Amino acid sequence: METSGSLVEIGANRCFGGWHRRFRHHSATLRCEMVFAVYLPPQAADGPVPALYWLSGLTCTDENFMQKAGAQRVAAELGIAIVAPDTSPRGADVPGDPDGAWDFGHGAGFYLNATQAPWATHYRMHDYVVHELPDLLESRLPIDSRRAISGHSMGGHGALVCALRNPGRYRSLSAFAPISHPSACPWGQKAFSRYLGEERDAWRDWDACELIAMARERLPVLVDQGEADGFLAEQLHPQALRQACAAAGHPLELRLHSGYDHSYYFIASFIEDHLRHHATALAA
Amino acid sequence: METSGSLVEIGANRCFGGWHRRFRHHSATLRCEMVFAVYLPPQAADGPVPALYWLSGLTCTDENFMQKAGAQRVAAELGIAIVAPDTSPRGADVPGDPDGAWDFGHGAGFYLNATQAPWATHYRMHDYVVHELPDLLESRLPIDSRRAISGHSMGGHGALVCALRNPGRYRSLSAFAPISHPSACPWGQKAFSRYLGEERDAWRDWDACELIAMARERLPVLVDQGEADGFLAEQLHPQALRQACAAAGHPLELRLHSGYDHSYYFIASFIEDHLRHHATALAA
Repeated sequence: METSGSLVEIGANRCFGGWHRRFRHHSATLRCEMVFAVYLPPQAADGPVPALYWLSGLTCTDENFMQKAGAQRVAAELGIAIVAPDTSPRGADVPGDPDGAWDFGHGAGFYLNATQAPWATHYRMHDYVVHELPDLLESRLPIDSRRAISGHSMGGHGALVCALRNPGRYRSLSAFAPISHPSACPWGQKAFSRYLGEERDAWRDWDACELIAMARERLPVLVDQGEADGFLAEQLHPQALRQACAAAGHPLELRLHSGYDHSYYFIASFIEDHLRHHATALAA
Repeated sequence: METSGSLVEIGANRCFGGWHRRFRHHSATLRCEMVFAVYLPPQAADGPVPALYWLSGLTCTDENFMQKAGAQRVAAELGIAIVAPDTSPRGADVPGDPDGAWDFGHGAGFYLNATQAPWATHYRMHDYVVHELPDLLESRLPIDSRRAISGHSMGGHGALVCALRNPGRYRSLSAFAPISHPSACPWGQKAFSRYLGEERDAWRDWDACELIAMARERLPVLVDQGEADGFLAEQLHPQALRQACAAAGHPLELRLHSGYDHSYYFIASFIEDHLRHHATALAA
């Protein structure tokens, strides 16, 4: 039997002079077995390096970003580790969407701590990503406490919320096509009404547009958004993020890209800019 | 009904300023519906560009390389299109492996023209890749007749064989972890004995190590091979390719990489070198 905190390596691939490694462990926070991936750049052979935590979108696992974003090349150049957690608790004991939908439950943890039964038992992705995973990595792997955070779609929402709720914990923040205002879009409303309950006051603590107003730290945000993204109008609402940042005086660079969609072909095209954005803050 | 030669676009993603496009068409050569992908760099908006034909390995489709190799960034810089065909004829009418194995039949066409029943009807990937697909692309898309060819594993074998059998047709050639001597490895022996029959004389026309001896063109070959590749000892035989090239005076740069395996993490790490190798020849 594994004890809590033990890491079992389930795969390793040499990549751009460093290593892509996958681990399985028992998460005390999520009360289930989890798999995550880490890219360790060549510099990690000589001592701890800072890490970018990447939060993926709906239906993803630890694998999508590592396989499709092409981020390792620049991470190897800059000496940054990349940590890619799964997108929800997993396993037969973890309840999923009652209708088998892909936008709630397994693969759709929304990076929050659920308060409602039956979800509250396992769905605590915020605490897993913000606390348990860094604690584990910084004690077991050559990764130090200089942290950056980014993500895509649901994971862009997650990156924004994790950073805004935890001042001082991250040195930099960015997102691709984030669900900027989940309280006001179908994906967010479905997830929040179940994980957090129908009482909308509780939703404010997990919505970037609400959190921006009261943020105690003004971490500059880089956001890339494709203008041909099929989810743009209904689900993503970057203009709400722009308004919230403007009202609060929060620094935001929102870049709109003609012709780009919601896919990893979009992410791959601009991930280098994000890595350099994070590297500057991580080195400061 | 579609007529032979018509192209139906089934997907398009903007990527590094160019376009990843997927097409379905009826192949007269293969007598079935096929899907392929093309990356058109930004330069293709101004006129025809040269193309790298990428042949993937066992079990792959047109998607693996496009999603995982990270090649579009450099292709966009260099102004090279990338063409990724499927790895076999497909569909319910196309016979696959009688035992449902993954190393023969669907996803395992071996880039040859089969001579034996029931395979000879559809399994003609050599003619599809070397003739039908370029004819189609060069007449319908902004792609010209400057061609380079590369591939991985079974596709590395395919690239070597397509170039060696067709002097003058390609300007440059490279491979990642190719099945260098299929007549002498289990994957190749299984495929050749069925597609080509038990008579081994017929195998020589489809084995790079045999073709090198009689090649009428000495196109320099760049080959990358990971030393931690799990298929290296039994299936790939790069030393046989080295011996054949040495015996024939054929220019070969064979690079062995410590710690790298057979995965796309390996390909992604070195694809830039291959693209620059091809760009030099395509521009000459």
